Amino acid sequence: MIGVGVVGYGYWGPNLVRNFWAIPDAQLRWVCDLQTERLAGLRSRFPSIEITENFEDLLNDSKVDAIAIATPVSSHFKLAMQALKAGKHVLVEKPIAATVEEAQRLVDEAERRGLVLAVDHTFLHTGAVRKMRELAAHIGTIYYYDAVRVNLGLFQQDSSVIWDLAVHDLSIMDHVLPQRPTAVSATGMSHVPGEPENIAYLTLFFSDTLIAHIHVNWLAPVKIRRTLLAGSKQMIVYDDIEPSEKIKVYDKGITLSPKGRSGDAANTMKVGYRTGDMLAPQLDMTEALERELREFLVCIGTGARPTADGRSGLRMVRLLDAASRSLAQRGAIIQIEQERVFA
Amino acid sequence: MIGVGVVGYGYWGPNLVRNFWAIPDAQLRWVCDLQTERLAGLRSRFPSIEITENFEDLLNDSKVDAIAIATPVSSHFKLAMQALKAGKHVLVEKPIAATVEEAQRLVDEAERRGLVLAVDHTFLHTGAVRKMRELAAHIGTIYYYDAVRVNLGLFQQDSSVIWDLAVHDLSIMDHVLPQRPTAVSATGMSHVPGEPENIAYLTLFFSDTLIAHIHVNWLAPVKIRRTLLAGSKQMIVYDDIEPSEKIKVYDKGITLSPKGRSGDAANTMKVGYRTGDMLAPQLDMTEALERELREFLVCIGTGARPTADGRSGLRMVRLLDAASRSLAQRGAIIQIEQERVFA
Amino acid sequence: MIGVGVVGYGYWGPNLVRNFWAIPDAQLRWVCDLQTERLAGLRSRFPSIEITENFEDLLNDSKVDAIAIATPVSSHFKLAMQALKAGKHVLVEKPIAATVEEAQRLVDEAERRGLVLAVDHTFLHTGAVRKMRELAAHIGTIYYYDAVRVNLGLFQQDSSVIWDLAVHDLSIMDHVLPQRPTAVSATGMSHVPGEPENIAYLTLFFSDTLIAHIHVNWLAPVKIRRTLLAGSKQMIVYDDIEPSEKIKVYDKGITLSPKGRSGDAANTMKVGYRTGDMLAPQLDMTEALERELREFLVCIGTGARPTADGRSGLRMVRLLDAASRSLAQRGAIIQIEQERVFA
Amino acid sequence: MIGVGVVGYGYWGPNLVRNFWAIPDAQLRWVCDLQTERLAGLRSRFPSIEITENFEDLLNDSKVDAIAIATPVSSHFKLAMQALKAGKHVLVEKPIAATVEEAQRLVDEAERRGLVLAVDHTFLHTGAVRKMRELAAHIGTIYYYDAVRVNLGLFQQDSSVIWDLAVHDLSIMDHVLPQRPTAVSATGMSHVPGEPENIAYLTLFFSDTLIAHIHVNWLAPVKIRRTLLAGSKQMIVYDDIEPSEKIKVYDKGITLSPKGRSGDAANTMKVGYRTGDMLAPQLDMTEALERELREFLVCIGTGARPTADGRSGLRMVRLLDAASRSLAQRGAIIQIEQERVFA
Repeated sequence: MIGVGVVGYGYWGPNLVRNFWAIPDAQLRWVCDLQTERLAGLRSRFPSIEITENFEDLLNDSKVDAIAIATPVSSHFKLAMQALKAGKHVLVEKPIAATVEEAQRLVDEAERRGLVLAVDHTFLHTGAVRKMRELAAHIGTIYYYDAVRVNLGLFQQDSSVIWDLAVHDLSIMDHVLPQRPTAVSATGMSHVPGEPENIAYLTLFFSDTLIAHIHVNWLAPVKIRRTLLAGSKQMIVYDDIEPSEKIKVYDKGITLSPKGRSGDAANTMKVGYRTGDMLAPQLDMTEALERELREFLVCIGTGARPTADGRSGLRMVRLLDAASRSLAQRGAIIQIEQERVFA
Repeated sequence: MIGVGVVGYGYWGPNLVRNFWAIPDAQLRWVCDLQTERLAGLRSRFPSIEITENFEDLLNDSKVDAIAIATPVSSHFKLAMQALKAGKHVLVEKPIAATVEEAQRLVDEAERRGLVLAVDHTFLHTGAVRKMRELAAHIGTIYYYDAVRVNLGLFQQDSSVIWDLAVHDLSIMDHVLPQRPTAVSATGMSHVPGEPENIAYLTLFFSDTLIAHIHVNWLAPVKIRRTLLAGSKQMIVYDDIEPSEKIKVYDKGITLSPKGRSGDAANTMKVGYRTGDMLAPQLDMTEALERELREFLVCIGTGARPTADGRSGLRMVRLLDAASRSLAQRGAIIQIEQERVFA
Repeated sequence: MIGVGVVGYGYWGPNLVRNFWAIPDAQLRWVCDLQTERLAGLRSRFPSIEITENFEDLLNDSKVDAIAIATPVSSHFKLAMQALKAGKHVLVEKPIAATVEEAQRLVDEAERRGLVLAVDHTFLHTGAVRKMRELAAHIGTIYYYDAVRVNLGLFQQDSSVIWDLAVHDLSIMDHVLPQRPTAVSATGMSHVPGEPENIAYLTLFFSDTLIAHIHVNWLAPVKIRRTLLAGSKQMIVYDDIEPSEKIKVYDKGITLSPKGRSGDAANTMKVGYRTGDMLAPQLDMTEALERELREFLVCIGTGARPTADGRSGLRMVRLLDAASRSLAQRGAIIQIEQERVFA
Repeated sequence: MIGVGVVGYGYWGPNLVRNFWAIPDAQLRWVCDLQTERLAGLRSRFPSIEITENFEDLLNDSKVDAIAIATPVSSHFKLAMQALKAGKHVLVEKPIAATVEEAQRLVDEAERRGLVLAVDHTFLHTGAVRKMRELAAHIGTIYYYDAVRVNLGLFQQDSSVIWDLAVHDLSIMDHVLPQRPTAVSATGMSHVPGEPENIAYLTLFFSDTLIAHIHVNWLAPVKIRRTLLAGSKQMIVYDDIEPSEKIKVYDKGITLSPKGRSGDAANTMKVGYRTGDMLAPQLDMTEALERELREFLVCIGTGARPTADGRSGLRMVRLLDAASRSLAQRGAIIQIEQERVFA
């Protein structure tokens, strides 16, 4: 039995509480939020959970092994660092922290102490993304990854649409693709005076001809959640709006053959076209958050690394930071700092 | 009755021939193509049309008032210039020419001679685009223009996907928006060694907070032809795949109000949300090319400027050229040369 | 404050409990179910609610003013009659009872005692159906009503797909159309030996040229929930699968004009076609069940008739019964018994 | 080289002419139509084809081996019989004739003379229907066939929507299913005074639990062309509106197992659910009419039976006739006369 505390009971916290509550291996001991009125309904529904405004209560409870943090991004670093220093395992909402330096320090602290540091990139645990990762290994050379995530969404006031939405696509891409981006060019705009960007376009470059692009937008009349993943053998469409056929695999593409017969330009290729069947594989419909929390608990027990560990959280913050800097310079290319190799 | 000659009888030429043939005001006198086998079927179907491999025949026929050019881009300048110098009105396939300088010289030549120089941007004459232009004037401050034009398409060997596909979206945007872009950042990639880019992303900046983005791609598993046009009062979706409801107007968006009561930050705004009806207006289903050719003939008769005249063709080439240069520098911002003011 | 008891805590009961719990005017006092293990989670979540296996506890509690019944159809009559005889207002799951006679007796009992008898036809309280009813009054002469409700659904063992699914469409139709059907022809089939029909087609005739048709099916590979409602002025499509644009109004149809100039057949008409805009009106997204329960409580307080009262429940059972008899005779026409006029 | 004449140059005739013209094995010699103005454009486009108002010209030309008839249904019998009696092979538009007796006499005449009698059921030659027929053999016991063919369509004045549209679905069903219907119950309505039915619903019964249903409608706001074909192993959706993925095979359905352990009702079954992948097979995109005409010419040469021969044309007319009689009696069941066995 692993003792758990949750801090932050706003938009996402209730989902953490509901799922921890349902997992037999977890004992949900505390929920903490500064706005106590949010906690009102909790006591009658989950009478065995303690409620507090004081984060220290969680840190001081020796039966709390792990703390899940679902507060605004700006507070992630402080709360996660306190928890790690108190010897607690930590699950943090995405993104892991507000700056690269903060993220790096959390990773270092967790590794030094041998504690689990996980980031709540819930999409990685959906049946659709797990299937896409599995399929991506067999579609040949990957040409591009193109994601669109737009709708009339909640404008965040302390972070741009990149930190709010692109973080999802960056983490899915990081999970699905074997390669990691080396540079980014981003553009975007704010349409509300004084507020961060509500529309953004990111192009990510890699060391070969793979290219990735992400379009995120809080101000669209329709909801689109579509990713194209094209390989030399097959092409995948991941449409998260579809109720059941979220993943479609197209057996189509181009074929390349040398262009000329004899003394032609050696490098040029003739392009042919190939079309075949489309398959929509059945997907595991288990709730993603439940899978993720179960994995977190297993990692605490075994010392295994979670799917989205601190290092992947740090990689995401590096990308978000680089994209934001490029956007500020209207698309100027920014190199991505590569992952430090840990001894 | 206006005498017409068509040069180029490959992919698009037959459409020009079929439509000119059906318009009573036009007398289609010549069709010219270097590959005579293409012209074989013409004689039996349209016995009154003369067939030739020799462009001079069209230039020398004093009953030919206008020449339509549907040959590869690289030959546009030479053929159009010859036609203008022979005193013929000219309709050229898009893009008008392969370089800014060529386009500029054609515009100058036509203006000097008082001849009609039109560019075949057929989409501008569709019911959908005409309706979008009409509606765009009433949707408030325009926030962004976002176009996607992807499918498994014919790889062109002498021009990138920007020159082949983005030219459509740039000309539609030019027609629909009152503003003109001031700078561009483009990215893209070629996946066929030695060939031009088959995927590209263009961001266009304007003098205010308007931003435009175009995604063009010859290597997509599904066909998407969708444009989002968001204004402060209404938002429009133009989906060219839809058989009839191609234009949808959404009466939704955000509302802005001052954030605080008293001494708060003066510049910040509170964002609210507004949702309402969606309307799909009935569209004129007349064939776009027929409308375009009729307009071309009217302009010859009256001296009026066609919807897509030489100057708009030149503007498009400037954008294509700037985008290509930005792409070569992985997104570096390129300023758009502004239109020369004609005296 | 109106005291409420709920009997039946299987598939639908938890929705009743959750909604009654959230309505300040209701005091949910009892939940009753024979399978006590279903009630286990209730006590911790709603500690103030009493739990029992004994329906008498609800009948005997003088603070219980109303009872909601969410048990299998076969038990509706007995439980509802007991409740009415104990002086309780009653809300019953659809269909109100298993036979016309049972339904009639419940209606009579409620009317005699001046108690509210409501049927839980939840769809009538959705924004989409309320909008369709509102629009139907302005679409001219109604030509037809065509509903399809199919998917891979739960096979019921004690009732056919007509009683399980067609009851939804019949009640929506009853609510939307001013006319009432006079006869029915139904066909269908069971594909599981010994079990009731899992696919059925109902045609309903009216006193004029209006015709209605309902296709219900538990064994379809895709989910379809679409209703076409065609009038002489406008045509409506109600697609319940659409996340937001569930109702679309098409300004199209036919026009009729006398066929000939002089001595032609006087009765024949020339048919023309008319097409116009399509409008998807914004819909009220309030939860339908909450609206319905609030209305039930208001009716108890004021004596008003609920949208789906006992009489409409009885009409539905008459239709279900007639359709089942027609189906057994492979489409033989069955007249619908008309509503008894109450003094 | 087979000499061909076409009679009827209205809506469909031009398609026959264009396709016969393009087939090297056919020599299109005559086109005949009473309304000579329709033929005006023919001469310039196909100068080698003779034009006439006089059907006798085709009959008398000894180089005409086969005649294709694309005139209104009421004239099919007379023209086809004349052609057969003149020793010509015949291809007739669907339906083959206006009555069962006429159809029977044409079949008898053709068989007696050893001439090919084919019916132009073009859909049978599409890639989608050929794939569906191929797949249907492997989907297990077939439960039902459900077809919807509705849109705002041309009201025919001399035949109901059953003869105009249901004939397509009946012939596809006849081609795809191994079984043949034994009885029909049909309902429908005319909404134009004095004109035939514009909406109709047909239920077809077979000797086992297979059931088929067809909904045809000239007065619908949206275009739907969807067929569900459910088998015990797989279920197929054929959606003719889809541009490329017209056929989808769903690996899902129900599973049946004996209900109880011991002394339970022996006949009843427990229903389980099974879901799996969906596959959209690639389809042959060859033009269906061209395939059909080539097959017709091959049959003339070899004596083979065409896919849609006179007997299948006769079966369709029997179904259309029975459905029309049932409709006139508001769904009364009508037995289908079974095919006469030819010696």
